[in-house]
Amino acid sequence: MPSDAEPAPVSAKTPVTLREVAATAGVSVATASKALNGQGRMTAETRERIRETARLLGFRPNSLAQSLLRKRSFTVGLLTNDTYGRFSLPLMAGVSDALVDKGVSVFLCNVEDDQRLGQLHVEAMLDKRVDGIVATGKRIDRHLPVDLSDLRIPVVYAFTQPDPGAVGLVSDDAGGARLAVEHFLRLGRRRIAHVSGPASFAVVHTRAEAYRDVLKENGLAVNEPLLGAWSEGWGHEAVAKLFGSAGREGWPDAVFCGNDQIARGVIDALRERGISVPDDVGVIGFDNWEIVAEATRPPLTSVDMNLSTLGREAGLALLSLVDGQPAAPGIRKLPCRLVVRQSCGSPPE
Amino acid sequence: MPSDAEPAPVSAKTPVTLREVAATAGVSVATASKALNGQGRMTAETRERIRETARLLGFRPNSLAQSLLRKRSFTVGLLTNDTYGRFSLPLMAGVSDALVDKGVSVFLCNVEDDQRLGQLHVEAMLDKRVDGIVATGKRIDRHLPVDLSDLRIPVVYAFTQPDPGAVGLVSDDAGGARLAVEHFLRLGRRRIAHVSGPASFAVVHTRAEAYRDVLKENGLAVNEPLLGAWSEGWGHEAVAKLFGSAGREGWPDAVFCGNDQIARGVIDALRERGISVPDDVGVIGFDNWEIVAEATRPPLTSVDMNLSTLGREAGLALLSLVDGQPAAPGIRKLPCRLVVRQSCGSPPE
Repeated sequence: MPSDAEPAPVSAKTPVTLREVAATAGVSVATASKALNGQGRMTAETRERIRETARLLGFRPNSLAQSLLRKRSFTVGLLTNDTYGRFSLPLMAGVSDALVDKGVSVFLCNVEDDQRLGQLHVEAMLDKRVDGIVATGKRIDRHLPVDLSDLRIPVVYAFTQPDPGAVGLVSDDAGGARLAVEHFLRLGRRRIAHVSGPASFAVVHTRAEAYRDVLKENGLAVNEPLLGAWSEGWGHEAVAKLFGSAGREGWPDAVFCGNDQIARGVIDALRERGISVPDDVGVIGFDNWEIVAEATRPPLTSVDMNLSTLGREAGLALLSLVDGQPAAPGIRKLPCRLVVRQSCGSPPE
Repeated sequence: MPSDAEPAPVSAKTPVTLREVAATAGVSVATASKALNGQGRMTAETRERIRETARLLGFRPNSLAQSLLRKRSFTVGLLTNDTYGRFSLPLMAGVSDALVDKGVSVFLCNVEDDQRLGQLHVEAMLDKRVDGIVATGKRIDRHLPVDLSDLRIPVVYAFTQPDPGAVGLVSDDAGGARLAVEHFLRLGRRRIAHVSGPASFAVVHTRAEAYRDVLKENGLAVNEPLLGAWSEGWGHEAVAKLFGSAGREGWPDAVFCGNDQIARGVIDALRERGISVPDDVGVIGFDNWEIVAEATRPPLTSVDMNLSTLGREAGLALLSLVDGQPAAPGIRKLPCRLVVRQSCGSPPE
């Protein structure tokens, strides 16, 4: 946006000091300080004049010094190594949502996977005297690459591996898998396959075990889950394995997938083989990543880990620790929910 | 993880005070303060003993008070309303990357689209005396819903509409579109269509104009760009419009798409019509959203806005303002780059 007049260069302005407020108001620094802190003895007029001067100059009292008196800074740090924010940002929204009414702000800091950097950022948060820290990550079976075990401020872990004896919140993955498989059963599906991610993830086993349990409870045949990558490409490969045989009667009538990208690949691959979703096969994903689930044809039914609720609960737990309430240590599992779209069809007549 | 022993409840620990350090070391608070600040007169042994005591107790000096002396807090705030972090998180990685060597940490705060909340979070950042703020968002033609015009600390805008007279960094969308169209021309494509997002976005017009310019410069026919949603669904619809006619000779041999989701829809729709990508039609997307571009079949060539470079430059600009160097106000456009995958084929023999 060009303009005729050459604009003035931007340069750094320094914060107004208490000294400047005092000088402008014609009082001592001590008097100015007392006036702004509501302490000391002076006339109401003097106090008001100093406050008005401070306001006009845009003076910001050193809230840190004030909050140290109150032992509260009304700021919470959120540490994560989830660079893409898939999991951390919904969680952050929940933490914010829980705390904003108390006037608490949430600052996110990405510690990445570098221990040295991580420690630098943790130090910066401690230096800012955040009231507490919510530690989060991209998987629940790994600890963040920073040591948070002896910080002297409360730490709550959400969607990441907690320290022993700490408060941790994770999604109930077994419950989530159960929701998916039971949904298939209610719709009359009986030959249910499970296609999931790499065996190195704890949730892969948790979900597979729940899948097996539900089928066994219902007297149904359990197929060994197919494990691969968290990708669309693996969804295509899995379809080739499951639907490659000649005998249509051996095909699954439902596929429960370990994430939405796998489910997307499964649905695309089925369409390309002329197999109809949901008429021939129902498909359910995991994560409820809306941008993927809604663009899938048909739109994908998916298990939502309720990350913003997880964040909300983490925020409330942290707040109660900050307020000096003891909290029971250990891992609390919060329920998932099933978001039903069109990839499973309707119940049988 | 159950265990036999009942773990002790977690409760908030309060920071070690200077008073405790002084009492433990058996000196006055003033002496302790001087020892830790490297001031005052005392024996080297006394100073060392006090420092060791502070270290053992885990005392954290009030770095805010220290940084006020230096006028630096070594923290930068990143404000955004990009809830999904598609644009803000790569940008944040760039800001961090530029500043980490200077010992500066970046804290992200989501102001969302609520002006009242936004102002609360801005106040919290100011209260923490961040050295400066990088404001970012989800589109370059909208201002964040907060007033940053008179903060008395430097503000740099990146990938969001700047205040008049401020320093702003955006991607060169016209240049990015030019890269895409010129790539098609080099590969021998001549009937190039453009499918983009809603007319309410400034970048839609910027990119469309560059598309027209390149075609005119090369004496080629310009087709009116097709505008719709930023979605896969719109990619499918656009293919029906472009390839619905009977005469194959009228079909485009290249489609330049306004984002990767549209391009994904275009490629899927072409495959379903039996039209080969890249043999019959080349496709280029915009954003280089890796998770989409790499899962597309074939993998998608896409324009990358270099958001982490944008973040890096924003971080460096902010740092120089914080250091008191004036900066030229106005909008600086940084070049995009083309990430070539397999959706455009090879040059003609």
